[in-house]
Amino acid sequence: MADRPGEIELGTERLEAFSDAVFAVIITIMALTLKAPEGHGWADVRDDLLPGLIVYALSFTMIAIYWNNHHHLLRAAERINGAVMWANLFLLFCLSLVPVMTVWVREEYEHPLPAVGYGLVAIVAAVAYSILVRSLIRVNGADSTLARAIGSDLKGYASLVMYAAGVALAFVSPWIAYALYVAVAVMWFVPDRRFAR
Amino acid sequence: MADRPGEIELGTERLEAFSDAVFAVIITIMALTLKAPEGHGWADVRDDLLPGLIVYALSFTMIAIYWNNHHHLLRAAERINGAVMWANLFLLFCLSLVPVMTVWVREEYEHPLPAVGYGLVAIVAAVAYSILVRSLIRVNGADSTLARAIGSDLKGYASLVMYAAGVALAFVSPWIAYALYVAVAVMWFVPDRRFAR
Amino acid sequence: MADRPGEIELGTERLEAFSDAVFAVIITIMALTLKAPEGHGWADVRDDLLPGLIVYALSFTMIAIYWNNHHHLLRAAERINGAVMWANLFLLFCLSLVPVMTVWVREEYEHPLPAVGYGLVAIVAAVAYSILVRSLIRVNGADSTLARAIGSDLKGYASLVMYAAGVALAFVSPWIAYALYVAVAVMWFVPDRRFAR
Amino acid sequence: MADRPGEIELGTERLEAFSDAVFAVIITIMALTLKAPEGHGWADVRDDLLPGLIVYALSFTMIAIYWNNHHHLLRAAERINGAVMWANLFLLFCLSLVPVMTVWVREEYEHPLPAVGYGLVAIVAAVAYSILVRSLIRVNGADSTLARAIGSDLKGYASLVMYAAGVALAFVSPWIAYALYVAVAVMWFVPDRRFAR
Repeated sequence: MADRPGEIELGTERLEAFSDAVFAVIITIMALTLKAPEGHGWADVRDDLLPGLIVYALSFTMIAIYWNNHHHLLRAAERINGAVMWANLFLLFCLSLVPVMTVWVREEYEHPLPAVGYGLVAIVAAVAYSILVRSLIRVNGADSTLARAIGSDLKGYASLVMYAAGVALAFVSPWIAYALYVAVAVMWFVPDRRFAR
Repeated sequence: MADRPGEIELGTERLEAFSDAVFAVIITIMALTLKAPEGHGWADVRDDLLPGLIVYALSFTMIAIYWNNHHHLLRAAERINGAVMWANLFLLFCLSLVPVMTVWVREEYEHPLPAVGYGLVAIVAAVAYSILVRSLIRVNGADSTLARAIGSDLKGYASLVMYAAGVALAFVSPWIAYALYVAVAVMWFVPDRRFAR
Repeated sequence: MADRPGEIELGTERLEAFSDAVFAVIITIMALTLKAPEGHGWADVRDDLLPGLIVYALSFTMIAIYWNNHHHLLRAAERINGAVMWANLFLLFCLSLVPVMTVWVREEYEHPLPAVGYGLVAIVAAVAYSILVRSLIRVNGADSTLARAIGSDLKGYASLVMYAAGVALAFVSPWIAYALYVAVAVMWFVPDRRFAR
Repeated sequence: MADRPGEIELGTERLEAFSDAVFAVIITIMALTLKAPEGHGWADVRDDLLPGLIVYALSFTMIAIYWNNHHHLLRAAERINGAVMWANLFLLFCLSLVPVMTVWVREEYEHPLPAVGYGLVAIVAAVAYSILVRSLIRVNGADSTLARAIGSDLKGYASLVMYAAGVALAFVSPWIAYALYVAVAVMWFVPDRRFAR
């Protein structure tokens, strides 16, 4: 089955299992960064818990969307190789930076730089995902089920543009950036429920 | 097999594996929030470790019951779709808030607000679970094994009422709330051992 | 196949997968409780890192032995029921207390109480394991492969006696307790390598 | 199939699943040790986030390489025994020390001792890996696919020499040590992509 010398043919099972475990730990560990309020009044909830909860919900949704897309992507893939494994690890690396950015935004949400950092991590993760898609197409062939299932990837490009706009406009106001990041999440969330096999 | 256009048919395996990993991390990460006593006397154990241990035991039981029910639910399910995946992720999101509430209750157990917060998370998780059940029934059909296995879900409604009562009565005394939360756990724990296939 | 009314027959796969995930998280999360030395000299290593490293090595070995035995136990089991699931969850609960005890012993290793606490958690975990064994035998039958494979469980009783002695003698000197806990680990570690199918 | 009395024959599945979970948790938990900058200016990013990010990237790559090699190693293995299980657990123990070393290097990267510590953990992990390889060859036979696939293990010896040089030269300058550690990662990363089945 190996039509390129020096490339291993691997099933996707263990890659999926390992990625699932990493996704699960990233998503859950972010919950651990939520701080319990330091007092027991409404003001403590508002100041200590609420900002963290909102950013956490955004990051959770972002990771969940990646997990969902990753799930569909690898189901469509029939073969992987070393390049796919490293592309996948690079994606996981980028996503593993989301928790620390979540904490930073929670602590300093009124300033532009944390919003920029969050957006940059999102951009790098989106680039990593598209590298993963490309390396999967290279192994599976341009006329494979996978390549056809992905199509033009318009949403991927739109996300990149919106994240980049968020990074640039964060210097005007971080709230514009947050609005754009939420918009990306909503865009992926909604039609994903009607994703056709 | 897809009898609804635009809906994917997926097996439950990877959903179960991912959920299991998230359940496992949530349940174990809570143990990490336990604080070692800061001294080496009985008083330090009583003040630092004991409250945390008791709340942890309650939260552990709560997550364990969800894992148990989730396990039975997905075993009975034959097919899932995108809506089920998001309902499941919403449930995991709610449960991932249990650790931070556990820490808050441990630190401020004598005040009403943490007891209220704990109960609200429990209510939202119960609602998320019933959304998951409904979306599973919608994919599998109202006359499926799944739908028959679930039946009237009396215990689910009873839990909601007891949690809501806990939230309301926490303002009278948080101890009433804790008693009700423990009662819910006991109610699920006991008959679950005789759950019929 | 269900010869007792009202009991579910389940395969062991998902129970094993969930337990593995919890074991893996417990064992790895303990590593997170290791403190990096606060300076950069040999004295900092000796004071900050070394005690933690030694206790961590002991706890890691203890959890690893449980994982190993759990692995063999469930391989020999053919069926489980609700009681087995709860016995298993109780075992995982007990083992999840090992990290916090590890931290406490690291911080206060010269005092009796942390050594007592560590031993008590070990005793409760050993009791939980034997409850799991018993509930497995009850489902699988007294003449099953499982029941024969376990035999008299002499080592289990010896461990309990040694842990109990450690708890009692910790008040004389915690070092006696630590020696006994290490002895239990060595006892399980050595012959386990020649465990016969 | 057991040609040595007193040794169990086990499939590799659960060992792989457990190891994967531990690898996944180690790699993700390191991300949790990243500190969010304490301010919101470029200087805070440079001082608080950047050093941690660079060391994290190195450690992530190191763990990822081990996961990758481990994956190929166990795919080639047909049988395991108790010795393999303990060798594997020892490897996981060594790798679980990487996060705390990562934190130490981040905090004190300008001093020799943290660089020495990091290198020592890397050496012990490399030794543990070669013990695992040897114990796998012993069970599978010197003329098995596994033994032939591994061959002379030149890269393993080169890594050990480079790590040892790093540990020694860290006392001249820690930057030499870091350069050598990065070189090892690059050496494994590059040709691994053309690993032949």
